Amino acid sequence: MKKVVNNVDQVVEEMLDGIVTAHSDSIKRIDNTTVLVRQDAPIKGKVGLVSGGGSGHEPAHAGYIGQGMLDAAVVGEVFTSPTPDQVYEAIKAVDSGEGVLLIIKNYTGDVMNFEMAAELAEVEGINVEKVIVDDDVAVEDSTFTTGRRGIAGTVFVHKVAGAIAESGASLTEVRAAAEKVIANVRSMGVALSACTVPAAGKSSFALDDNEMEIGIGIHGESGIERVPLQSADKIVERLLNQITADIDYQDSEVAVMVNGMGATPEMELYIVYRHVAKLLAEKGITIYNKWVGEYMTALEMSGFSITLLKVDDQLKDGLNAISQAKAFRV
Amino acid sequence: MKKVVNNVDQVVEEMLDGIVTAHSDSIKRIDNTTVLVRQDAPIKGKVGLVSGGGSGHEPAHAGYIGQGMLDAAVVGEVFTSPTPDQVYEAIKAVDSGEGVLLIIKNYTGDVMNFEMAAELAEVEGINVEKVIVDDDVAVEDSTFTTGRRGIAGTVFVHKVAGAIAESGASLTEVRAAAEKVIANVRSMGVALSACTVPAAGKSSFALDDNEMEIGIGIHGESGIERVPLQSADKIVERLLNQITADIDYQDSEVAVMVNGMGATPEMELYIVYRHVAKLLAEKGITIYNKWVGEYMTALEMSGFSITLLKVDDQLKDGLNAISQAKAFRV
Repeated sequence: MKKVVNNVDQVVEEMLDGIVTAHSDSIKRIDNTTVLVRQDAPIKGKVGLVSGGGSGHEPAHAGYIGQGMLDAAVVGEVFTSPTPDQVYEAIKAVDSGEGVLLIIKNYTGDVMNFEMAAELAEVEGINVEKVIVDDDVAVEDSTFTTGRRGIAGTVFVHKVAGAIAESGASLTEVRAAAEKVIANVRSMGVALSACTVPAAGKSSFALDDNEMEIGIGIHGESGIERVPLQSADKIVERLLNQITADIDYQDSEVAVMVNGMGATPEMELYIVYRHVAKLLAEKGITIYNKWVGEYMTALEMSGFSITLLKVDDQLKDGLNAISQAKAFRV
Repeated sequence: MKKVVNNVDQVVEEMLDGIVTAHSDSIKRIDNTTVLVRQDAPIKGKVGLVSGGGSGHEPAHAGYIGQGMLDAAVVGEVFTSPTPDQVYEAIKAVDSGEGVLLIIKNYTGDVMNFEMAAELAEVEGINVEKVIVDDDVAVEDSTFTTGRRGIAGTVFVHKVAGAIAESGASLTEVRAAAEKVIANVRSMGVALSACTVPAAGKSSFALDDNEMEIGIGIHGESGIERVPLQSADKIVERLLNQITADIDYQDSEVAVMVNGMGATPEMELYIVYRHVAKLLAEKGITIYNKWVGEYMTALEMSGFSITLLKVDDQLKDGLNAISQAKAFRV
């Protein structure tokens, strides 16, 4: 796999340089860290929101920094959790005295490092709460996880928690809203081709010309099964059946995300969305709102995921609230 | 190349279904056509803006429909110009009596078909003007063009002309603003890998593991030269040198677009932007505003283009004006 890079060991550093150079009006970098924060952080009277994880999932998570979403994104090496001291720096940078919520995707390394950072911050008297996103219904455990993985549904957690925090809610209230999203969001993905970590130089796995992998994660972890490539409609049916078997969406309203994994043309994402909408109508599930695009990628992996969030009035308000984050403008 | 499709002959039809299903609040389809228009078109007192071309360049052009940008996008088959009757339907759908501007990328088929449509419309008493975008400095002629090709710079034409039209300007004024953008915008691209038209089933060209093609178009047309893969910084230098040799940007302010061709991770686009910013500073060129993302793609091609638009006060105002287009929110 060819890449537009200079030194494979400097890709994250150079990406951070690029992001901060491009978006210095809204984002700043904490010196000597890989932490990006809102230019106006900490924001008086507002709970701080911190997320992050390995890089390679762009626009996650730096693209979700901004009014109405995250205060900080902690950026690890490619597909590698950031260290506790980096997360700690983010917590300190965004705490205005109202406390900080950590939004963690459920990977063993992320959970451990974010929790250690929370302990460091609490010693300093900062009130820290955390939520762990585990929306992927594909596998119960995986290469990098105990329990379900956190994937694209995380973006809905950022959005709703961000809106509630912006409204001046307490840390307890912001955490409760984030937990409500997590309880009601499910996702599942498929890959048609793998991706290459720059420093590794070769793909994490290989698929034949006629194969796809169902239930893939966002780091090239294994899925449930490797099967012959099927039509878009068949793949959508497979993913939606597993998602809707997990919680009862019947007669509900949902927010839908069709998320490209990195190399899938938008044309194909809309072909997918078309069938998602048809099948949900058949299942008696009403689409309240939808997002079609690249929100949580795996470098140049080809494939997509589907996310359904069952919404009530509070979650609808959270999704509809203003967001100035560059990758999620509302 | 594997694709998430059903029937390769139905990809455009199914994509249109998906777009209209997803965005029925803002976009409608003219029955029995491949024309997408603003839900509220025609808009009283406003010049209509029509663009389009072959599909496969998403989000171009349907993603640029909305307040402050296009009134209609005419969608052809993959990498194939829409027919004159389709363009004619778009013109009729958006004309409110103030006339219609056609924004055409410079490909022989597009120019011919849009011009024929303009003639049909003028017979019906609709006032139609056109502009032809030819921002690609790579090659003077190409497989599909006499003269330079129109590529990502087209999006800046949509944005500025859209803003001027929204302000209630006359067709002559809207056209003049579009022409000013065209006179001041230049682009150039590079490909690391090719793309596959679904119905063709195989790549338009092949690059070895260590090769890239400089000066590529957005349909897999040949570029200037095929050379060994270089570092991101070297590629940026090559493209910027050719762009800035073409018109005098010295001591100017520019809008910059770093555009991914489809499969290039956002990480790499920011690594590119970082060096673009550095080199422009060295050249005495000031960045007024920037866009980093996928704006004019070639299906799943890997690579990117750089666009520079020299801005004056009118063009700055045009770029800053509100846009509700889903792929270009301002």
